[in-house]
Amino acid sequence: MKSAKFVVIEGLEGAGKSTAVATVLSWLQANGADVVQTREPGGTPLAEQIRTMVKAVQDEKIAPETELLLMYAARSQLLANVIRPALARGQWVLADRHDLSSRAYQGGGRQIASEIIDQIRAVVVKDTRPDLTLYLDIDPEIGLKRALARGELDRIEQEKLDFFKRTRQKYLEIAATDSSIVVIDASKPLEQVQQALTDTLSAWFN
Amino acid sequence: MKSAKFVVIEGLEGAGKSTAVATVLSWLQANGADVVQTREPGGTPLAEQIRTMVKAVQDEKIAPETELLLMYAARSQLLANVIRPALARGQWVLADRHDLSSRAYQGGGRQIASEIIDQIRAVVVKDTRPDLTLYLDIDPEIGLKRALARGELDRIEQEKLDFFKRTRQKYLEIAATDSSIVVIDASKPLEQVQQALTDTLSAWFN
Repeated sequence: MKSAKFVVIEGLEGAGKSTAVATVLSWLQANGADVVQTREPGGTPLAEQIRTMVKAVQDEKIAPETELLLMYAARSQLLANVIRPALARGQWVLADRHDLSSRAYQGGGRQIASEIIDQIRAVVVKDTRPDLTLYLDIDPEIGLKRALARGELDRIEQEKLDFFKRTRQKYLEIAATDSSIVVIDASKPLEQVQQALTDTLSAWFN
Repeated sequence: MKSAKFVVIEGLEGAGKSTAVATVLSWLQANGADVVQTREPGGTPLAEQIRTMVKAVQDEKIAPETELLLMYAARSQLLANVIRPALARGQWVLADRHDLSSRAYQGGGRQIASEIIDQIRAVVVKDTRPDLTLYLDIDPEIGLKRALARGELDRIEQEKLDFFKRTRQKYLEIAATDSSIVVIDASKPLEQVQQALTDTLSAWFN
């Protein structure tokens, strides 16, 4: 087994992140990895309080900067109290969303300048970077239909289609410049997506 | 009456901020000001949720960066939804704590580098700056005794004396470089402090 690594699953609503997390978890465990799972925003008691706050449909308009700071406040707790200690103990970390979500949603969707996001990232993320990010790419029209079929949409999921188009665009833009991000076509049938995930993991391991 | 201004009361626990706010409010209103009062962290429904979160004694250790981001998330909401709209309507704003608290507590007390705080300030505060800050200066040994006499201490008030000494030091350091911050000796008897506040306001008005 390789030494402990930090693996992230990313994608829009309805891209199939939960299934992908289960597939990757099984594969890693079958290959002998001791895995700690996280989800963002959230993953510690305080970060889960922040998750509830940002997802709730509030009476009050949430300023884009507020949302960005809350996402990074939650991430700061998760990094300090879960992710860094796990990696230091030699455990793998499998994350359902991480830093790339903020760059895509707040940078693309909310159109906050990447210079601003990068300053806050530097404060929070420091030198803890994912070793591998599996980005499940989906047309938001398809993804949102799937998400809606699952049940009620939260505050962010209620954004207009253009918001998610900008978010997807930003995901793809960043993926094109970072070799640790692998784009998986999530519009394909489930078995093909799962095959693509395990093929990517196998190739990455060897 | 002058056009609408932004006035802030600052100081350590037990410095007498609440009494000072009442004194300044009376003086401003007697001079014809239409005043909106704020307190930080807090002052909007979401910001008050964040206040509860940062003041509660949590089972989980809160990372210094998390605390900083939560303080600025609350401030971002208050600026966007209360302070800027009030000033735009021509109302005065009288704030019980603002940006200087984060610079002093998180910068001095928690020893976060001022370059980091300044980056986040720039994102949140933008060009909304207080016209006058009245800093009530007190030796933290005296202030904490007063705060303790009032009742139970919250998470931040439970910090050790050195934390508050560093916070006071930072308040004084910043005040020395910024002519919009007036240092009021809060160790004096109440009437003298009140006199100093109203004298400062009178001088500032003329």
